[in-house]
Amino acid sequence: MIVTPADVRLLAVGTALPGPPVDNAALAARFGMSPTWAQWVEGFVDLETSEVHCSLTDLAEIAGRRALAAAGITAAEVGLMVMGSATPDQLMPATVNLVADRLGINGVPTYQLQSGCAGAVQALGLARELLAGDVAGTALVLGGDLCAKHFPAKVDLSRVPPTQLVNLVLFGDGAGAAVLTREQVPGTAAVRRVMNTLTGLNRPPGQTLEWFGVADRDSDRPPASEEYKAIEESVPVMAVEILHELLGDLGWSGSSVTHLLPPQLSGRMTERIVQQLDLPDATEVSCVAETGNNGNALPFLQLERALPKMSAGDRAVGIAVESSKWIKAGFALEMT
Amino acid sequence: MIVTPADVRLLAVGTALPGPPVDNAALAARFGMSPTWAQWVEGFVDLETSEVHCSLTDLAEIAGRRALAAAGITAAEVGLMVMGSATPDQLMPATVNLVADRLGINGVPTYQLQSGCAGAVQALGLARELLAGDVAGTALVLGGDLCAKHFPAKVDLSRVPPTQLVNLVLFGDGAGAAVLTREQVPGTAAVRRVMNTLTGLNRPPGQTLEWFGVADRDSDRPPASEEYKAIEESVPVMAVEILHELLGDLGWSGSSVTHLLPPQLSGRMTERIVQQLDLPDATEVSCVAETGNNGNALPFLQLERALPKMSAGDRAVGIAVESSKWIKAGFALEMT
Repeated sequence: MIVTPADVRLLAVGTALPGPPVDNAALAARFGMSPTWAQWVEGFVDLETSEVHCSLTDLAEIAGRRALAAAGITAAEVGLMVMGSATPDQLMPATVNLVADRLGINGVPTYQLQSGCAGAVQALGLARELLAGDVAGTALVLGGDLCAKHFPAKVDLSRVPPTQLVNLVLFGDGAGAAVLTREQVPGTAAVRRVMNTLTGLNRPPGQTLEWFGVADRDSDRPPASEEYKAIEESVPVMAVEILHELLGDLGWSGSSVTHLLPPQLSGRMTERIVQQLDLPDATEVSCVAETGNNGNALPFLQLERALPKMSAGDRAVGIAVESSKWIKAGFALEMT
Repeated sequence: MIVTPADVRLLAVGTALPGPPVDNAALAARFGMSPTWAQWVEGFVDLETSEVHCSLTDLAEIAGRRALAAAGITAAEVGLMVMGSATPDQLMPATVNLVADRLGINGVPTYQLQSGCAGAVQALGLARELLAGDVAGTALVLGGDLCAKHFPAKVDLSRVPPTQLVNLVLFGDGAGAAVLTREQVPGTAAVRRVMNTLTGLNRPPGQTLEWFGVADRDSDRPPASEEYKAIEESVPVMAVEILHELLGDLGWSGSSVTHLLPPQLSGRMTERIVQQLDLPDATEVSCVAETGNNGNALPFLQLERALPKMSAGDRAVGIAVESSKWIKAGFALEMT
C-alpha cells in the first residue's frame, strides 16, 4: 500500500514541564519589570531553573515515555526518532540519543535538529516524510528546550539590556513528544501538511542565542538577544502568510478550520496574532499563560490540549514562526 | 516518473579549509607530546584556530559556493538545504540559515542536524529521502565543524588530561558541500544507500563535547573528552559492521567495491581499520594526513578526492562512526 505524507497519522502526544509555574508577581519581583514588559510577559515561567535541576534529556525522556504509553507503543516498535531543540544538553552526544538510551530505543536512525521555535514542526515534518518513504513504520518525535543556561542568575539584572531581559522572563522550559505512524488507524489525526520555509534573505536575525566554548567563555558578547520590534512587526504578518499558504496548499477554507494553534508569544501578542488570523469559527488553543514560551515544547503542549477536543472531520492548524532567521513553520491536521 | 532514494544523484562536491596545514613538528612543540600520542596524531591540524579567524558560516559558504559552481547550479535552483555539524556558530540562528543568506538561497526548507562524525552522512541521507519524496528537485547538503571554541589557547596544556588533549591535536576545521538532484544525469554518482543507525543502548558515550551558557560558563567540567580506549576498541569493529550491512543491503560483493572512504581517525588507526575492512581491490581514499579530522567536513573531503577517479560502474563505500553515542553511518555510491 502506498502511504503518502498526508496519510501519516499522529497517534498520541506527551509532554513534560520542569515544575510548578511561577507567576507574574514573582517575575516582577525578580526582574523589577517596567510596564513596557507587560505586553511581552503575560505568562508564567520557571524561575527555579536558575538552579539547574533537570536536563533536556530528563524532560524529553518523560515526554517520550508519556507519548509512547498514550499510543500503546513499546520502545521496540519505534523505528525512527527525530528531535528538535535550540538548547541541547551537550553538543555531543546529541540529546536525542541519550533519550533513546533512557527509553530503551536502539538500532534505529535518529536525527536531532538545531532550531528555535520551528524545530518541533521541522521534526514533525521530517518524521512524516521519512515514514511516508517507509524508512520506518513508527516514529517518536521530540521537541523541547531548557533555557536555564541562558539565565544569568548571578548577574545584576538591572544592567541586562532590554533585548536580553525579555528572554529571561518569557521563556520557560519543557519538552514534548508525539508518536507518528504509517498505519491508517481510524480515529487519529492525519498530518495533512507540514510547512518549513526559510524567509531570511537579507533580513537581520530577529533573535540570537549564543553558546560558549572554552576558548571564548570570557567573551562579553550578549548570550541572547531579541529584536522585539522586528518580531512584533513581522511575526503577525508571517503567521497570516503561513495560515494562507497551508490552507491554499490543502484547498481548505478558513471556515473549515475548527482548531487554531497560534504562535505562543506573550499573551497580548498572541491575542493580536489570533485576531489577524481571523478564523472566528476556530477554537484557539494556547498555553503560554500557563507554561510560558517553552520553545520547541510548545506545539506538543498545544496538541495535548487540542486533540481530546477534536472529533472526526475536525481540522487543526498549528503555526510557528522562528524569528531567529525568519522561518515560516506550520502544520495542518485532520481528525479521521 | 518515480524516483527512488537509490536513484538520487550526487552532482558535485566542494570543500573549504581555514588555511595552510600545520605539521606534526609544530604540534609537538605546542603540545609537548609524548610518544603515546603518535598513534593518534599523525596528521596536520590548524593550530592557527586558537585565534578565531573564520566561522563555520564562512567555511560552509565557500564550500557551498564551490559545490554549486561545480554542479552548474544557481542559488535559485536550490530547493532544499540540509547541514550537519557538531559545532554550529550559534544556537540560533542555525548556521545553515546564515549560509543560505550568504548564498542567496531563500523560500526553501532548511534543516540543521546536530551530530558529530555522523552528521554529514545524516544530512546526505535526509536530503536523499526528501528528494525522492519530491520535496525538492535539487538539494545543497553541507557539513563542517569548527573546533576553535574548544581549543583552550590560554590554558596550560601540560595540565590538560589526556582524554581532552587528543581532541586538541587531532581535530581540524573545515566544511564541505554536495549538490544532490532527482534528475537522472548520466555520468554522475547515484547514492545507492545511506545508513544511520544508533547503537548506543547501555553504552557510555565515547566522546562528549560541551557548550556553556551564561549560567554555567564558569563550570570546571571538561569541555571535551574522549574515551580513546573504547574508541580504539569499538570503531574498527563498527566500521566492519557498517561495510557488511551496506554491502548486504545492496547485494554487492566486497570485490565489486572500487573505492573505500574509511573513517578518518589518526593515520595509524585509519590504517588498522582499512586492514580489517579487507577490501584489497578497493582504492583507499583518505585525507586525515593532510587535513586532520575535520569532523563533518570529512566525507566531502574524501568525495572530492574519490569522484574524479571513478568511472562508470565504479562503486564507492564511505564509512563514518560517531563514537559520541555510537552511531553507525555510511553510504554507497555507484558511478553511472
